[in-house]
Amino acid sequence: MYKIDLNCDLGESFGNYTLGMDREVIPLITSANVACGFHASDPNTMADAVSMAKDGGTEVGAHPGYPDLLGFGRRNMVISPDEAYAYTLYQLGALDAFLTAQGMKMQHVKPHGAMYNMAAKDYALAEAIVKAIRDFRKDLIVLALFGGQLEKASRDLGMRTASEFFADRAYNTDGTLVNRKLPGSMITDEEAAIERCVRMVKEHKVETIEGTDIDVDCVSICVHGDNAKALSFVERIRAAMAAEGVALCPLKDIV
Amino acid sequence: MYKIDLNCDLGESFGNYTLGMDREVIPLITSANVACGFHASDPNTMADAVSMAKDGGTEVGAHPGYPDLLGFGRRNMVISPDEAYAYTLYQLGALDAFLTAQGMKMQHVKPHGAMYNMAAKDYALAEAIVKAIRDFRKDLIVLALFGGQLEKASRDLGMRTASEFFADRAYNTDGTLVNRKLPGSMITDEEAAIERCVRMVKEHKVETIEGTDIDVDCVSICVHGDNAKALSFVERIRAAMAAEGVALCPLKDIV
Amino acid sequence: MYKIDLNCDLGESFGNYTLGMDREVIPLITSANVACGFHASDPNTMADAVSMAKDGGTEVGAHPGYPDLLGFGRRNMVISPDEAYAYTLYQLGALDAFLTAQGMKMQHVKPHGAMYNMAAKDYALAEAIVKAIRDFRKDLIVLALFGGQLEKASRDLGMRTASEFFADRAYNTDGTLVNRKLPGSMITDEEAAIERCVRMVKEHKVETIEGTDIDVDCVSICVHGDNAKALSFVERIRAAMAAEGVALCPLKDIV
Amino acid sequence: MYKIDLNCDLGESFGNYTLGMDREVIPLITSANVACGFHASDPNTMADAVSMAKDGGTEVGAHPGYPDLLGFGRRNMVISPDEAYAYTLYQLGALDAFLTAQGMKMQHVKPHGAMYNMAAKDYALAEAIVKAIRDFRKDLIVLALFGGQLEKASRDLGMRTASEFFADRAYNTDGTLVNRKLPGSMITDEEAAIERCVRMVKEHKVETIEGTDIDVDCVSICVHGDNAKALSFVERIRAAMAAEGVALCPLKDIV
Repeated sequence: MYKIDLNCDLGESFGNYTLGMDREVIPLITSANVACGFHASDPNTMADAVSMAKDGGTEVGAHPGYPDLLGFGRRNMVISPDEAYAYTLYQLGALDAFLTAQGMKMQHVKPHGAMYNMAAKDYALAEAIVKAIRDFRKDLIVLALFGGQLEKASRDLGMRTASEFFADRAYNTDGTLVNRKLPGSMITDEEAAIERCVRMVKEHKVETIEGTDIDVDCVSICVHGDNAKALSFVERIRAAMAAEGVALCPLKDIV
Repeated sequence: MYKIDLNCDLGESFGNYTLGMDREVIPLITSANVACGFHASDPNTMADAVSMAKDGGTEVGAHPGYPDLLGFGRRNMVISPDEAYAYTLYQLGALDAFLTAQGMKMQHVKPHGAMYNMAAKDYALAEAIVKAIRDFRKDLIVLALFGGQLEKASRDLGMRTASEFFADRAYNTDGTLVNRKLPGSMITDEEAAIERCVRMVKEHKVETIEGTDIDVDCVSICVHGDNAKALSFVERIRAAMAAEGVALCPLKDIV
Repeated sequence: MYKIDLNCDLGESFGNYTLGMDREVIPLITSANVACGFHASDPNTMADAVSMAKDGGTEVGAHPGYPDLLGFGRRNMVISPDEAYAYTLYQLGALDAFLTAQGMKMQHVKPHGAMYNMAAKDYALAEAIVKAIRDFRKDLIVLALFGGQLEKASRDLGMRTASEFFADRAYNTDGTLVNRKLPGSMITDEEAAIERCVRMVKEHKVETIEGTDIDVDCVSICVHGDNAKALSFVERIRAAMAAEGVALCPLKDIV
Repeated sequence: MYKIDLNCDLGESFGNYTLGMDREVIPLITSANVACGFHASDPNTMADAVSMAKDGGTEVGAHPGYPDLLGFGRRNMVISPDEAYAYTLYQLGALDAFLTAQGMKMQHVKPHGAMYNMAAKDYALAEAIVKAIRDFRKDLIVLALFGGQLEKASRDLGMRTASEFFADRAYNTDGTLVNRKLPGSMITDEEAAIERCVRMVKEHKVETIEGTDIDVDCVSICVHGDNAKALSFVERIRAAMAAEGVALCPLKDIV
């Protein structure tokens, strides 16, 4: 039977600032990436996100990021491997405490924003992040960009790895995402986006921006919970998967 | 046989800023209170402190504080019990990740600065902190001010509790510390301070500022590693304890 | 002719986090209190707020707060007068740079949240804040709680002072606001709230929660721009004032 | 008569963390670059640094940096020109408030660390920084790396520009500094370093690492106040300049 995970970034509010519709999106997804206080989130937000995930039966992963709340972790920063290692370890531990207090177990780790993007290209950075994950808990799943250096480093270090598919992004022939600044980089037609998801799940293939087919072996689709439109798109993906006989289940039941 | 623990705050450097002589004081103490990134410390400082403690055979505890790096966690802040719970849990988890990565186990928790002082007086705050510690790990020791609300809350919640003695501070007859702003609040004569420590260990008594004796049942002495003078004072305490046949051992071997 | 100022807190977004409907409320008010990066705001948010105020012809004041982004400056913190002085000066200067770059002049200063509330009760804190304002620019207007210590310190130090009226809050007979936790503390009937504003402007009187009348000499009404309901309330106040022949004008044209 | 300015980074302490020997180095230099709270410093540290500079008769400039206290502003960060503009303006204003309160006038601006290095190579970043300086005050002097993009942008925007010479660094033939990681990048022989300074002042020439002479037209030498050795080096430079008949004077008396 076909299976797919739906992952979504969560727990991104901070103090008096609310971001994302956590409560609404949690019942729709199977894996939640919870921010850990560096690029977003705070201890009470994390406690709430974990508690909602528990209620919703959603698996939780850590979503560590750069120490740049002002830039929401989206700005490239040059940090050393030692820093990347320690920042990752710190954030994994911080989130894990809330899971422990709720009797839950962390399922996966997915770096956030610029850390995710830079780790996809920089093996030394990726390796430092994976070492922190491994030293924290060997059975964690590393959720990474398909074909990137983080995926490679995870495999090299003997960690379980999962790749994610971006429903709304165009792919280059080498498997990388088309730069957002280029025309055609975003798949704005929801129907087309959903068809791409279904095909990826069933055939492990996606048509690139150049028009050729490439293999993509992803076990998760990255969705968003920022607003009503995003939520409705997640519901459409769920309906399409149900219609196609694809089961939605968390990463740990696929990898 | 008489036993006493020596505890010291450590890992208080931040980025480019160095504070404390961690490397020098670690071999002299039995329990290290490592800052967790709120009032002081950062992930790399924590990694280093834990690594040095491992090399020195020193037990490690968490030293959570208020989110006030600018004030070094020494300024009173009014936070809600929910915030105190989540801030404590977050910091315990963050430090624990570094211990896990080193194959170590957290021994105790001692709140820092204003959080320590306010929790000694405010039961609701103390209770929230202890609940976080308990929800994180039931076998942790809570290191608290003798006779304060944090000690009381720890006992009420069934946690192991340890009190600490301040070698250089005068005590009131009710067991509280004499306000630092008052004359006679500091025991500046090192010889006298050491004699007070020895008497506390052997007789569980200390002479108050008013001249009467009170009972103090502390299993740890709080020492400092800020400078050469502080280090030399720790060495004098160690020598005095050795001469008196008092064994130095970590909290977990006493409580 | 009767005159009144409408002041509103603005520029409270931070990085990726948006708060408040600045663009919509600016045309409705006469004085904007712009956050300065301690309890809220960031440099780009401040630049935008100042630019919008310029376009809207709205006067700008500084809204300095405690260094507590996580608590939005609403948590009581014990800081020294030296710290209060320096924190205020820093924030005034930071905001003033954006005004200078736009060819504008700062009109007033209103401390935010816990700093506002604590300064209303603590003369030493209030005095330190006012000294910073005075040392920065002697012609600034200090916008304060009616009858509080900040107003008193401003007068004592020879600064121009303005008090603000809270349309939606009940008053005690001594002129202080009724604690929000008490029943009847909020004036939830908009019609009644507006009538209280009109009476305050025309008669300088307000009926207290005990049912007696007291004198309140306020030149500004504090309004909010958080959501559509708040905006519509500001529009009702504007309409009521127009109907009563009360001119809306910035603080500097009244004090 | 020959003239040279000695500039030094100052006011880099933060809260409980002390960095640099500000009090000792101020009397030895002619221009102080005071950190503004982003990469280092805090309001009280800035107040103290400005006050010491006033007492010492030393001119003060702003030393804005990246919002990265954890990395001391030394890590490359990719920020947009809009962010660079607003971050610079904010920091200039913040420092200026302390100068205003002391009746002083800001002399110059020198970006710090990674902001300085990146602006030397990236014209768009440099231009945004210079626009902020210009919009704040047109008569400020921009202190920049000799031959870099910041110097170029300053000239293009009609600002007064000054370049600084690094006594302890080797130069490439194109005028850039030799990468610190390469052998020979640091001039460790103090005598040789001082001779290079004197030659630069008198002949505007320096011998590059390749052994050729290049023209360097710097009006300031960058010195350090971190420790006793650094201070003694500044004193040697001062003595050498005196012996050579070179007057020490602030930037504004040279540019």
